[in-house]
Amino acid sequence: MAKVAIQPRVLKGFRDQLPQVCLARTAMLARITEVFASFGFVPIDTPALEYAEILLGKGSEETDKQLYRFRDNGDRDVALRFDLTVPLARFAAMHIHELGTPFRRYHIAPVWRAEKPQRGRFREFIQCDFDIIGPKSPLADAEILLVIHRCFKALGLSHRIRFNNRILLNALLTQLGIETKIVAVLRAIDKLEKIGVDAVREELETQADIQSRSADQIFAFLELSKAAASNRAVVEGLKDALADSDSGKEGIARVEQVLAVTSASGLTDAELQLDLSIARGLDYYTGCVFETALTELPEIGSVCSGGRYDNLAQLYTKQELPGVGASIGLDRVLAALEELERIPQRSSSATVLVALMDETSASGTAALATTLREKGLAVELYPQTAKLAQQLKYADRKGIEYVVLATAEQLARQVASVKEMRSGEQRDEIPIDALPTQLSSN
Amino acid sequence: MAKVAIQPRVLKGFRDQLPQVCLARTAMLARITEVFASFGFVPIDTPALEYAEILLGKGSEETDKQLYRFRDNGDRDVALRFDLTVPLARFAAMHIHELGTPFRRYHIAPVWRAEKPQRGRFREFIQCDFDIIGPKSPLADAEILLVIHRCFKALGLSHRIRFNNRILLNALLTQLGIETKIVAVLRAIDKLEKIGVDAVREELETQADIQSRSADQIFAFLELSKAAASNRAVVEGLKDALADSDSGKEGIARVEQVLAVTSASGLTDAELQLDLSIARGLDYYTGCVFETALTELPEIGSVCSGGRYDNLAQLYTKQELPGVGASIGLDRVLAALEELERIPQRSSSATVLVALMDETSASGTAALATTLREKGLAVELYPQTAKLAQQLKYADRKGIEYVVLATAEQLARQVASVKEMRSGEQRDEIPIDALPTQLSSN
Repeated sequence: MAKVAIQPRVLKGFRDQLPQVCLARTAMLARITEVFASFGFVPIDTPALEYAEILLGKGSEETDKQLYRFRDNGDRDVALRFDLTVPLARFAAMHIHELGTPFRRYHIAPVWRAEKPQRGRFREFIQCDFDIIGPKSPLADAEILLVIHRCFKALGLSHRIRFNNRILLNALLTQLGIETKIVAVLRAIDKLEKIGVDAVREELETQADIQSRSADQIFAFLELSKAAASNRAVVEGLKDALADSDSGKEGIARVEQVLAVTSASGLTDAELQLDLSIARGLDYYTGCVFETALTELPEIGSVCSGGRYDNLAQLYTKQELPGVGASIGLDRVLAALEELERIPQRSSSATVLVALMDETSASGTAALATTLREKGLAVELYPQTAKLAQQLKYADRKGIEYVVLATAEQLARQVASVKEMRSGEQRDEIPIDALPTQLSSN
Repeated sequence: MAKVAIQPRVLKGFRDQLPQVCLARTAMLARITEVFASFGFVPIDTPALEYAEILLGKGSEETDKQLYRFRDNGDRDVALRFDLTVPLARFAAMHIHELGTPFRRYHIAPVWRAEKPQRGRFREFIQCDFDIIGPKSPLADAEILLVIHRCFKALGLSHRIRFNNRILLNALLTQLGIETKIVAVLRAIDKLEKIGVDAVREELETQADIQSRSADQIFAFLELSKAAASNRAVVEGLKDALADSDSGKEGIARVEQVLAVTSASGLTDAELQLDLSIARGLDYYTGCVFETALTELPEIGSVCSGGRYDNLAQLYTKQELPGVGASIGLDRVLAALEELERIPQRSSSATVLVALMDETSASGTAALATTLREKGLAVELYPQTAKLAQQLKYADRKGIEYVVLATAEQLARQVASVKEMRSGEQRDEIPIDALPTQLSSN
């Protein structure tokens, strides 16, 4: 057999999304965006392609290397966005005077990173970010945490959000006289779950040059939330530990406000846990930080993380824009939903297939499909003549629940048969008027 | 004032989508995808970036110049997709053996074209394509036409689809012995509405070298549908005009089947009109072709066009893949919906703002917002203390309908006030239990 002109393939690290995955993703996003809307968040979109200068910002060498960057036909230095945070900063700098604050936006869109592809990691993936820009109040932090809770509840995924506030650790380090080492300490603590206490202590003492006594104090501080029976108990411990620190008191007050608001809205200590070991890698965060684990699948890691920042868009505007935001890891969540079978595995959006018995019944069959659609049913019409066995096999393979069959003679008498695919049971001579009830009874 | 580090801006021909536009677009797409689902169409997605070789295919010089093409970090020759048709062909070649036919997919995704930006034309825009791959039957053509009809009906836009079948004109040209000139004749006819009969005749006779007598016959043929009172009358005229042509008879039979099926499904002659002057530019189409005008805004041009093709993916596979598909011009439709005020002009997704009266009532106020959300209302909580006037102004600017106000003392008594923003009317001392009814009464 002759070869085709062009071998069909996709780039390494890229992927086609087949209907089954796309349907699951669409269903997942519909639930998430409904929650966003119920909290008054609005969608925005920004160009996939931007000036490289804008996207690079103060970027690290790491992001520079990962950028899809090129010269366009007008010889402009451009690149594909690698996240939705930098575009949000640029967007806010340009439009916030018109939009005003508080501004609650969400943005669900693809990003591109030329990183080494790994299992479950792609060079093109969809990010899902939501932020409240403007307010400094911990009430905004609490709202973000409530949105996270509601999203995972809507997806049927039990979860635990662990949160912290960077002001607390800052206050401790100030008390210990080592506040300049905050970044190194945060980085070390961030590895606690992965490498364990001993390795973190090693890192603190040798790399960050922190005295053993100070390291003891840091671990004792982290122990406050590890040993505590409740969020209330952690707060009491913090009040003792940071009794002499004004910034410590401010941090505690913010944490208490978050806890008061979220518990008044129904979150339990198991759902939102104050955990002093939560650090988050980015030095961009300045207050509340958080991450989210699925209680049934903790091993997949955080499915939603984020935090508070003092100044979103300082590279692009003189206007100070504080805010708080989070990002849902859609690929991880989708994998979890599939593993837990919380999203129907179908490759059709129809629940009914109207079979075509022969050429002469085409109009009548199409009219029947229209009638069922008008009753709100999702209906595929088999769009060509074929053996009935083939049409039934088609319905079976697509996961379509019912097949409706009617010959021209039956259509003339306004009756049809219904085959339920799972049981194989067939009911005959059903009046067409009665079909919608029969087909939505499950 | 010092300059910012980086001037925020977007590339020429690109645009940010602000909440008001994004909300309208989201609402529009929700209606369209609901119709797709009701016909059993499933979503797919493909990478934005592909091998340039794949995207170029047998492309014209025109598309080559419009391509965002570059070498990636692995020195691969890559490009951003410029439409969704080529990716569909590549996708079908790779996956159709697994997906099977008939395959009904839709694909809503951005494409990029480095063309000269004009008013209403951008270098990045969203395409919305839907196709049925596999069946040769005119029943599939009819299904596509029914989907178009339902989509515009769901959007509240009255419309007229004009359709034709290329087999008919082909048959006429064969009768006239000039079937080799089909491409030139199609191109000329495609300009009929824009440049008029005389200019088209000029083009036929001088550029395509068609004799005056043949041109007369072509115009007489086109006149069949111009003068006819009904689709039935056009078909009768065709039967006379193409009486001696076997392919003509086949074309007529296909047209009749489309008309039988669509009229059985409720489409009137005004909604679906057989128009022999519909040509469509692309030589890719081989059968049914169509375009759609909005009856209230005909001047904006076709909002949905497409047709039948014999072989979707011949560059990438030996498997013959016939099909029929259409593309909705989302930007045009959105502009039309805005002009006709068929989509609400809001910049919030919330209908209720819960105001924050003071710091001490934060928890109670947040709990109240949660209660209302649990009743299915979309609720923004004002996430910081601010003067009430400022909070009301915020609600007004965002188009939020109601503001709920409650002091800590009122919250303790389980009552609140409701201010209706349009009328300015305020109702006080409403029991919190009764709020959901009050707030969804409009």
